[in-house]
Amino acid sequence: MNIQTYMQDIGIEARKASRAMASADTIQKNNALTAIAKAILREKDTLLAANKLDLDAARANGLEPAMLDRLAISEKTIANMAEGLTQIASLADPIGEMSNFKYRPSGIQIGQMRVPLGVIGIIYEARPNVTIDAAGLCIKSGNAAILRGGSEAIHCNQALAKLVHEGLQKAGLPTTAVQVVETTDRAAVGELITMKQYVDVIVPRGGKGLIERIAADARIPVIKHLDGNCHVYVDDDADFDKALRIIENSKTQRLGTCNTAESLLIARSVATTMLPKLADMLTAHGIEIRGCAETCRLVKQAKPATEEDYYTEYLAAIISCKVVSGLDEAIAHINQHSSQHTEAIVTENYTKARRFLREVDSSSVIVNASTRFADGFEYGLGAEIGISTDKLHARGPVGLEGLTSLKYVVLGDGHVRA
Amino acid sequence: MNIQTYMQDIGIEARKASRAMASADTIQKNNALTAIAKAILREKDTLLAANKLDLDAARANGLEPAMLDRLAISEKTIANMAEGLTQIASLADPIGEMSNFKYRPSGIQIGQMRVPLGVIGIIYEARPNVTIDAAGLCIKSGNAAILRGGSEAIHCNQALAKLVHEGLQKAGLPTTAVQVVETTDRAAVGELITMKQYVDVIVPRGGKGLIERIAADARIPVIKHLDGNCHVYVDDDADFDKALRIIENSKTQRLGTCNTAESLLIARSVATTMLPKLADMLTAHGIEIRGCAETCRLVKQAKPATEEDYYTEYLAAIISCKVVSGLDEAIAHINQHSSQHTEAIVTENYTKARRFLREVDSSSVIVNASTRFADGFEYGLGAEIGISTDKLHARGPVGLEGLTSLKYVVLGDGHVRA
Repeated sequence: MNIQTYMQDIGIEARKASRAMASADTIQKNNALTAIAKAILREKDTLLAANKLDLDAARANGLEPAMLDRLAISEKTIANMAEGLTQIASLADPIGEMSNFKYRPSGIQIGQMRVPLGVIGIIYEARPNVTIDAAGLCIKSGNAAILRGGSEAIHCNQALAKLVHEGLQKAGLPTTAVQVVETTDRAAVGELITMKQYVDVIVPRGGKGLIERIAADARIPVIKHLDGNCHVYVDDDADFDKALRIIENSKTQRLGTCNTAESLLIARSVATTMLPKLADMLTAHGIEIRGCAETCRLVKQAKPATEEDYYTEYLAAIISCKVVSGLDEAIAHINQHSSQHTEAIVTENYTKARRFLREVDSSSVIVNASTRFADGFEYGLGAEIGISTDKLHARGPVGLEGLTSLKYVVLGDGHVRA
Repeated sequence: MNIQTYMQDIGIEARKASRAMASADTIQKNNALTAIAKAILREKDTLLAANKLDLDAARANGLEPAMLDRLAISEKTIANMAEGLTQIASLADPIGEMSNFKYRPSGIQIGQMRVPLGVIGIIYEARPNVTIDAAGLCIKSGNAAILRGGSEAIHCNQALAKLVHEGLQKAGLPTTAVQVVETTDRAAVGELITMKQYVDVIVPRGGKGLIERIAADARIPVIKHLDGNCHVYVDDDADFDKALRIIENSKTQRLGTCNTAESLLIARSVATTMLPKLADMLTAHGIEIRGCAETCRLVKQAKPATEEDYYTEYLAAIISCKVVSGLDEAIAHINQHSSQHTEAIVTENYTKARRFLREVDSSSVIVNASTRFADGFEYGLGAEIGISTDKLHARGPVGLEGLTSLKYVVLGDGHVRA
């Protein structure tokens, strides 16, 4: 197989399908989503069998247990996929939404209409559920999708693709609206991320290594987030109980998510009274504390932190800690070290809360709540294709709207420019 | 001089200045803009003298008259620069605007805040007024700017940079908020468009060649438009007088602008009656008509068009013309051949107007008005840094808002995730 020709053909079909999807009715798109959900539940045995082929091959190839875990699906995963599609069907259709119409002195009326981006290329690793999530979001937002999952999941992804095509067909939409790349050749990714004429945006989902590689090599805009080195800053005017609750939730609820806190900053004026108790709570949860010299003086169990620690997203039972002089140093430290994902301040002080919100340059800024809230579902987007730490186009959790654009609409009655 | 070190130093300073600009008060930014405007008017003789140095060098180097024309400034150009800054000062400050705050079932309140992009790199050709336009838009939108003008305009740009710095200083803002690259070495551009850690977005302004080169080589997102192959479609249900007026204005008001119509489509049912008269109007304006076989049969003065013609942005006294079967063929032809800039339909039919608006995939879609309206000032943006034919981030005329992003703001009272 010539990979370039194969991928270009997929691109040509996707571009064609994107035109049909852009003008598809809301009811057609919802019908497709619910038909796919039904098919997934009906064919659960087929899916489990396909997944078993992938798992057997993965074990034979000696894949790590964590990878096997991400690759495996169960009756519960299958039910969740179907439920996710039903939820996406219930969201408002963003496409065609018209807004901000105003008359101008020239007499024309001007506003904007929300439109799909066109063709979305999604590159992901072993998790088969991304196939369904991504297909669902692209269908609802009127885009065509080219999906390239990890080679380990190829059987399961092909089985899912069949059901997606069945649903699209039942709704009278082109099956080429969602294409799953059927080769495991890595050259396919290289082609996908450079064929500008057929693909409008790339969304990589997976580990930092994958995303960095794709961002470096892509010649198409990428919606991405690399890491979440999230901070909680305990201000001079923090309420201790809120600080305790928020740090516990931000750090210990789940260790491996991108919105987990990785660094704790605390104002010097409250460090003596609060930090030992906060540290004991963390230690009780099995979290290792790596701190500055002052932290180590105040917290017996703390180990010294290196500068490198303050840049690190641990995704593990470790937190870095630093005593700072106050808000100015906290903001400067965060803007220097964070990955611009999510940062929280704990304070009762109105002026400092307001400054933190304005001056911290991250995709989510939070007052008196857990960093764990930084999530498309928690924010009410209904679904999420990723969290962007970039500033262009989409920032923070990216839902259906992040897969759309706005075009200008001008209405006149024979108007010409003077 | 080591160009890489020189540019990296500029980048480091720009990143620092961008933090100060992001939290600058509205009044400070406006004070800077009006102080620059005053300084420009006061120093008009200095500016004209600097421009003369550039013009003399350009003539000695045998530059083309069109290039010399773009390079030259006059008392009027200088007054326009100052007026432009005063207008930008009068616009609402987009930064810090908060919107869409809602309570979620979890109890958190979630909304968005408008923030600057950070550091904008602007690359342009000979026109010195771009230095002032770009500086003004970046200051008002709370960004830092790195400006790289054409080497032909170096003296004038340096003189302008001094006045920009004077205005920033008077307003208590860092002079490094607007830096003009002082080397004419081309390697500086290569460095500017690849130093990701210091530059957030590149805006190239100039000819198609410049923009294509930059888009191909940049490793930073680019806000760009390449060309404007704009269409007017005269529908079966067009009002003839409106069609005549709109085509005349779209094609003949100015030949060299990106929102000028380059192609005329007309429905077969009205071609016999309308096309000869429309063509005569165009011919009276000195416009050459290149048409399909049917056009050539109906219009004596028409020459045959090639397929290439339908893809061409002439920027000249030429228009391509095609008779189509109706709306479907018109939309398909436009989506195939246009550069996704601006397209207009002339029709009295509600259903066809609605379909044209939805299905034509261009940054501006127009019913019964001239394509010449596609412009930041006409749309009420107050100013324009360019017109984007891309879909990501900004589409169509890009004003202050296009130089900003939205971050999420979460307000809680000790809330944690369940």
